[in-house]
Amino acid sequence: MVKNGVGRDIPEYIEGIGHLKPYEKPFSVVPEGIKAGSKLKRPLPHKSKLIKNIEEAVKATGLKDGMTISFHHHFRNGDYIVNMVVDVIAKMGIKNLRLAPSSLGTCHGSLIEHIKNGVITKIESSGIREPLGTAISEGIMDYPVIIRSHGGRARAIESGELKIDVAFLGAPSCDEYGNANGFNGKSLCGSLGYAMVDAKYADQVVLITDNLVEYPCLPASINQTQVDYVVVVDSIGNPKGIVSGVIRHDKNPRDILIAENAVKAIEASGYFKNGFSYQTGASGASLAVTSLLRDKMIEKNIVGGFGLGGITAQLVQLHEEGLFRGLFDTQCFDLVAAESIGKNPKHFEIDASFYANPHNSGPAVNNLDIVMLGALEIDTDFNVNVIAGSDGVISQASGGHPDTAAGAKMSVILAPLIRGRLPIVVDRVTTVVTPGETVDVLVTDYGIAVNPLRQDLIENFRKAKLPLYTIDELQKMAEKLTGKPETIEFGEKIVGIVQYRDGTVIDIIKQVK
Amino acid sequence: MVKNGVGRDIPEYIEGIGHLKPYEKPFSVVPEGIKAGSKLKRPLPHKSKLIKNIEEAVKATGLKDGMTISFHHHFRNGDYIVNMVVDVIAKMGIKNLRLAPSSLGTCHGSLIEHIKNGVITKIESSGIREPLGTAISEGIMDYPVIIRSHGGRARAIESGELKIDVAFLGAPSCDEYGNANGFNGKSLCGSLGYAMVDAKYADQVVLITDNLVEYPCLPASINQTQVDYVVVVDSIGNPKGIVSGVIRHDKNPRDILIAENAVKAIEASGYFKNGFSYQTGASGASLAVTSLLRDKMIEKNIVGGFGLGGITAQLVQLHEEGLFRGLFDTQCFDLVAAESIGKNPKHFEIDASFYANPHNSGPAVNNLDIVMLGALEIDTDFNVNVIAGSDGVISQASGGHPDTAAGAKMSVILAPLIRGRLPIVVDRVTTVVTPGETVDVLVTDYGIAVNPLRQDLIENFRKAKLPLYTIDELQKMAEKLTGKPETIEFGEKIVGIVQYRDGTVIDIIKQVK
Repeated sequence: MVKNGVGRDIPEYIEGIGHLKPYEKPFSVVPEGIKAGSKLKRPLPHKSKLIKNIEEAVKATGLKDGMTISFHHHFRNGDYIVNMVVDVIAKMGIKNLRLAPSSLGTCHGSLIEHIKNGVITKIESSGIREPLGTAISEGIMDYPVIIRSHGGRARAIESGELKIDVAFLGAPSCDEYGNANGFNGKSLCGSLGYAMVDAKYADQVVLITDNLVEYPCLPASINQTQVDYVVVVDSIGNPKGIVSGVIRHDKNPRDILIAENAVKAIEASGYFKNGFSYQTGASGASLAVTSLLRDKMIEKNIVGGFGLGGITAQLVQLHEEGLFRGLFDTQCFDLVAAESIGKNPKHFEIDASFYANPHNSGPAVNNLDIVMLGALEIDTDFNVNVIAGSDGVISQASGGHPDTAAGAKMSVILAPLIRGRLPIVVDRVTTVVTPGETVDVLVTDYGIAVNPLRQDLIENFRKAKLPLYTIDELQKMAEKLTGKPETIEFGEKIVGIVQYRDGTVIDIIKQVK
Repeated sequence: MVKNGVGRDIPEYIEGIGHLKPYEKPFSVVPEGIKAGSKLKRPLPHKSKLIKNIEEAVKATGLKDGMTISFHHHFRNGDYIVNMVVDVIAKMGIKNLRLAPSSLGTCHGSLIEHIKNGVITKIESSGIREPLGTAISEGIMDYPVIIRSHGGRARAIESGELKIDVAFLGAPSCDEYGNANGFNGKSLCGSLGYAMVDAKYADQVVLITDNLVEYPCLPASINQTQVDYVVVVDSIGNPKGIVSGVIRHDKNPRDILIAENAVKAIEASGYFKNGFSYQTGASGASLAVTSLLRDKMIEKNIVGGFGLGGITAQLVQLHEEGLFRGLFDTQCFDLVAAESIGKNPKHFEIDASFYANPHNSGPAVNNLDIVMLGALEIDTDFNVNVIAGSDGVISQASGGHPDTAAGAKMSVILAPLIRGRLPIVVDRVTTVVTPGETVDVLVTDYGIAVNPLRQDLIENFRKAKLPLYTIDELQKMAEKLTGKPETIEFGEKIVGIVQYRDGTVIDIIKQVK
């Protein structure tokens, strides 16, 4: 065991996983070597890539026991692809696969069966939700899962740490030679940002579509130089689960309070000026922040440089109103965003490496000024947990949380002081996903706490007379209402490894009792 | 010496170059291994990439004696970048560099001095024109130059055969963090297709611009994840030399005759139907073909799938009129094309690998039906020379010639039967660039010859009563008017190696006497 940079004990070696490198500091890893490369090919001209079904595609790729398969999660809880493909693979008798999707959702519960029957023996993903997360936390797998951020996954693939043998990528719009985009078709999802990384680096790429269009399918987000086979199926996803309509603004008064405090913090930060850049999520409080921010931008005549994300209808509106010059989009959260990316030339589709990989020549997060983030828990060292709930069970996702926190000039955690009768601020988060050193501000409905590393922000906020507290004060305030939360007890088995974006290990997750 | 697949004697080894692999057949090379990768980096957030001048950029990249530098040729004869950068490097005392631009033009004559003074000791390029081509053919260099097609260069870079240490890429529009495109700014050139390959694979990428725009510069053809430094200079090129205005249609009656024959051949070929794809150049005869083809498409109510190129105003017009569903564009030939690529979403910018690299999963040429090509000479085996003129001097470019000929279902050489008082058909071309096996039809002002390998086309053309001759008959027809041309005499020194697109050697070029 080695104590890492956030004080967690990290084993030096795990059977079946290998040596672990403990996390040190946000930017302490300087990578050596070169980017990975997919296999060179020699396709003969005028040869179709259409293949009649998934089974034939799996055969054509030469998928074998022990290989790594990947998927994207742009269809979110509407995804049919993962289950469809793994079912076929299971029937074909292929075993012992490493499953490396960009993320997994609640719709992927049937993977539990495929873990039990030995088809899937390893999982690497940004997120894992119930019921699969629960099964994993209860110890169903022999090897721990690896949790990576979106930028961390792109880095792992690009550096060769995560070698994908076959990527099975759902394509909302696709031609027979492998040009595809996500902004047309009945299963549209907008940006294919996560899938674009797999398409570049996987040795074999299979596109699966329910909307084969005339050649060429343009503009192409994934293109024919990357794709080996194209399969047409009836349906790749449930549109209702893929993109929501416009997300309603939450009128929850607690969210409004948090949002008001957040916008005050943005205004006072010194970063709220022409050209500023901004990322937020799709939670109620986040949406409320953007809404209030828009009013402030109009009032103060401020035009932002870019919005980043995770793009919502709200950010599209701000872009179309001229309030953000451009949008960098690795994932669309709603239908308006999904359609906008196909028509607004400065609503620009980026892959997950462009978004957040710390080891290319400059990811988008490196120019980010302000980001709004969530938290399951935050501790008094500002470490944040976004993966395992207060019960210690894997249920959420790392996502872009550690990436944007590291890149942004000011990372803001938006959270109610108390959630589910538990304080949001704890002595020590169950699992560290984002290190406190990269977390600048906690904004709650009861007040604001600033990381003591950021005396500059403390001073600015004090001048602006914001409701400033230390994080310990906020913790005490919460505990007065809730009492001290009970400590969760874990077993000894390691069920998850949480990588920091640079490939080091920031925490491990143990089996729940 | 080994006799290769087109009967040329190829040395097995050349000092300073290494072992040569003789050309066999158009698709006989099946590559092994994986794609090359550029260096992994770790840029800190919020750190500018702006650097004050080219000298500082060269220093920052760590360029050293013996390294490889690259450039793109989208500025054609208006390019200032190559001379500007090599002058600075020469002043800094760096020697013995390999120069690997996508092509070189007549504006690069000052490189002769830098060859003499030892700054440049090797050159690899698609084309080399006078006066540099003449100097090389006269033996100025110690090592032979390597001539590659556009697809061949992309393959060489992508496979690691051509490793670029530092790419210096002119950017008509660029922000301070390295997002760039070619369709805005005073030096606009449209597609940055050749440069995009260098940006992906070079270890260090320097963008040089005369039009720094607000961040983010979107859409980005080259992007911040690929770029290390950005330098602003007064001018990167002479707009007059970069893109011509709309190219006038040639009224040369010889070209009209050739074009009329070519369109008859297209009509009779069996490939002229809905969804067909088409590439052509910007010569008078090519433009005349497209013009007549447009009339035929309207008359017969035929809509093409895509136009490929080398895009001109003409093809933009056909696209905007709905006659081609999409355009794949690796290089814009005129201002209309350069502006169109920024506004027509299905006028799609592709890099040279997408265009023509035989070793990715499917280049655009693989779906090409019909291509119109030129020739300096064609021999009775249908081998074509597009690099060294009838005097044996390197003066032109391989370009996409061998790539499109190999990919297209029907490759058509457009040429006058007699040029400069010499017959276009010869017993044996001075230098083979494109193997006869991939050349299907020769269309001249006097008649049409079809490669005997294509009995299907011969039959179709015969049925359509086209003016069919054997290529020997056309040769005799020409020689009756011109006499038999004299054979050129060469020295023993090898001054050039002509690679086929797959990396094998299709011919060598010797010193002129």
